Amino acid sequence: MIALQIEAADGAARTGILKTPRGDIRTPAFMPVGTAGSVKAMLPQSVRETGADVVLGNTYHLMLRPGAERIARLGGLHTFMGWERPILTDSGGYQVMSLTKLRKLDEDGVRFRSHIDGSEHFLSPERAMEIQRLLGSDIQMVLDECPPFPATRAQMETSVGLTERWAKRSRAAFGAQDGRACFGIVQGGVFADLRARSLDGLQAIGFDGYAVGGLAVGEPQAAMFETLDATVPLLPRDRPRYLMGVGKPDDITGAVLRGIDMFDCVMPTRSGRNGQAFTRRGPLNLRNARHAEDPAPLDEACRCPACRGFSRAYLHHVVKAGEIVAAMLLTWHNLTYYQDLMAELRAAIAERRLAAAVRSIAQAYARKEEAETN
Amino acid sequence: MIALQIEAADGAARTGILKTPRGDIRTPAFMPVGTAGSVKAMLPQSVRETGADVVLGNTYHLMLRPGAERIARLGGLHTFMGWERPILTDSGGYQVMSLTKLRKLDEDGVRFRSHIDGSEHFLSPERAMEIQRLLGSDIQMVLDECPPFPATRAQMETSVGLTERWAKRSRAAFGAQDGRACFGIVQGGVFADLRARSLDGLQAIGFDGYAVGGLAVGEPQAAMFETLDATVPLLPRDRPRYLMGVGKPDDITGAVLRGIDMFDCVMPTRSGRNGQAFTRRGPLNLRNARHAEDPAPLDEACRCPACRGFSRAYLHHVVKAGEIVAAMLLTWHNLTYYQDLMAELRAAIAERRLAAAVRSIAQAYARKEEAETN
Repeated sequence: MIALQIEAADGAARTGILKTPRGDIRTPAFMPVGTAGSVKAMLPQSVRETGADVVLGNTYHLMLRPGAERIARLGGLHTFMGWERPILTDSGGYQVMSLTKLRKLDEDGVRFRSHIDGSEHFLSPERAMEIQRLLGSDIQMVLDECPPFPATRAQMETSVGLTERWAKRSRAAFGAQDGRACFGIVQGGVFADLRARSLDGLQAIGFDGYAVGGLAVGEPQAAMFETLDATVPLLPRDRPRYLMGVGKPDDITGAVLRGIDMFDCVMPTRSGRNGQAFTRRGPLNLRNARHAEDPAPLDEACRCPACRGFSRAYLHHVVKAGEIVAAMLLTWHNLTYYQDLMAELRAAIAERRLAAAVRSIAQAYARKEEAETN
Repeated sequence: MIALQIEAADGAARTGILKTPRGDIRTPAFMPVGTAGSVKAMLPQSVRETGADVVLGNTYHLMLRPGAERIARLGGLHTFMGWERPILTDSGGYQVMSLTKLRKLDEDGVRFRSHIDGSEHFLSPERAMEIQRLLGSDIQMVLDECPPFPATRAQMETSVGLTERWAKRSRAAFGAQDGRACFGIVQGGVFADLRARSLDGLQAIGFDGYAVGGLAVGEPQAAMFETLDATVPLLPRDRPRYLMGVGKPDDITGAVLRGIDMFDCVMPTRSGRNGQAFTRRGPLNLRNARHAEDPAPLDEACRCPACRGFSRAYLHHVVKAGEIVAAMLLTWHNLTYYQDLMAELRAAIAERRLAAAVRSIAQAYARKEEAETN
């Protein structure tokens, strides 16, 4: 079990520290995604320098390669990937649904073929928790089922039932692990009453934290925010709240306003590999020819190596030339941008100026996106 | 002009400092290759941390993308790529011959099509030097012609004649550039008398340093060493001697024994991207399944981040998974290995124990290669 220490609140938003034996997690927190044992194009020390307190590991990818038992024999995921601070692992359920073919899902679990080599694998609530325990994960997620968007109410109702039964089995399989936490996942899509029912079931079981799953899967942002408006107030105040797989900077600011504490998303890392940069004046596409002779840095206010040492012209060049350093620099920059965004949100909550801070972030973000498409 | 300060010698080998306005180059020196404005998978600060005093830039790649005039407008290659220490640039001739199609070579220069977009370009001795001046290169190489191996004596004789006339035009085009050097390139293949004739021509023109070109292009190592045995003693003692495009660790040790001061090669960087690591006990292929559960570092004596923070098992995993961090870590390691090799050679020369040091390096290198292939 790990403890959330709330230090200040501003409306529904809160800032504080999630205390774990491997170090404090300042909330609201953004967790860079370290899919297969690496935050892509980054060394662990550099991830830490961006300001990250915790990274996410993907159970699905790691169970297939190199395998959870192998990582356990090598001393666990922290040692393996060179990140000694907290790690949260997902349960693998979402990736099984989105990345694999020939799935067979029943009450017991889900049978699927690896997207890497076609080999057959089985994931049950018990196995998902066993894998996460073998990895040595600090925050372990229950196995849930997340139907693709849009789902009918009937589909979602069935799914919520299965997710609750799986949550119970997951929690039992997690057992008692000193200094580690097990989070439940609220499902129910955009149906507020199903979300409430899902949460009731989870609270009856009892978890160390509560995640909101199944959002940012294709629904409009307004639908996501409506769902948070209906769901977050029902979540226990003294437990961390984690919005899974979210999101763009303005998704995050909106969710922080509504009381979410934790986020993860591949956006800063994946965008970085695709030549996209987030800046305080909005996103930039470095492939754009207008950067070819621009001696200015990406973002004058940024402290990352890409902004301290290189021009937009250089970044344009290395993106166009397919140089690995382009992925390295833009990933580092984007993760710095995300961590600085979270730091600003934490400061704004502590100083009771969150609404104004979010407005200013959103305006800048919208303004430059227009400029970029001209 | 830049000055070579020889500090110690051991047989034909020498160690010293090549003084340049942008910093000292400790010789014998290995220059990492920064083809298109980036030492692939490395940030400039990390290149420096490996111990590199100078990097090589490729005129051919940079003239095509982003273009020499553009780099000049952006303040020169040093500023552009974030490397403020010395840069040596080749003349582009070798890449035109090895990478392009539809070449047309005559007395004037060579017309070719870009391997990137098929666009037509022309490189003459004058243009090659103009590009290097625009880049702001500290050590500029004359445009030479290097026929493919094996060449007949007649072909090589013709080529040496052209190379000498181009060297004269290159030197004239270089003119006088404060604090910058222009190197001539000795050609002649494996024909000792042609090498001597080529060098005579170059010395009549007068250069700040002398390169041996056209080796490591497919000939056996013994032929390369024989050519060095015949050629290096003829080179002026007080000028730096640069063996272009070489090589493997045992090529380098053999060439240092014979009096070479400078080297460049893509081997440490390219091998790193391909999952190959050089170690004090010989090369390793990290793809090999025998590393899958090995908790040991690549090389216990190595100071690089790959060896300080990760196991062979992790490196095997990230290589197999195609993670960018594999290229980053193995490149960093290999460049560190090369720089430590050069440091050991410099120390061994200063302490008059080079022959023993080279024997010990060569034995370790040969031994482990056998182990690896078992």
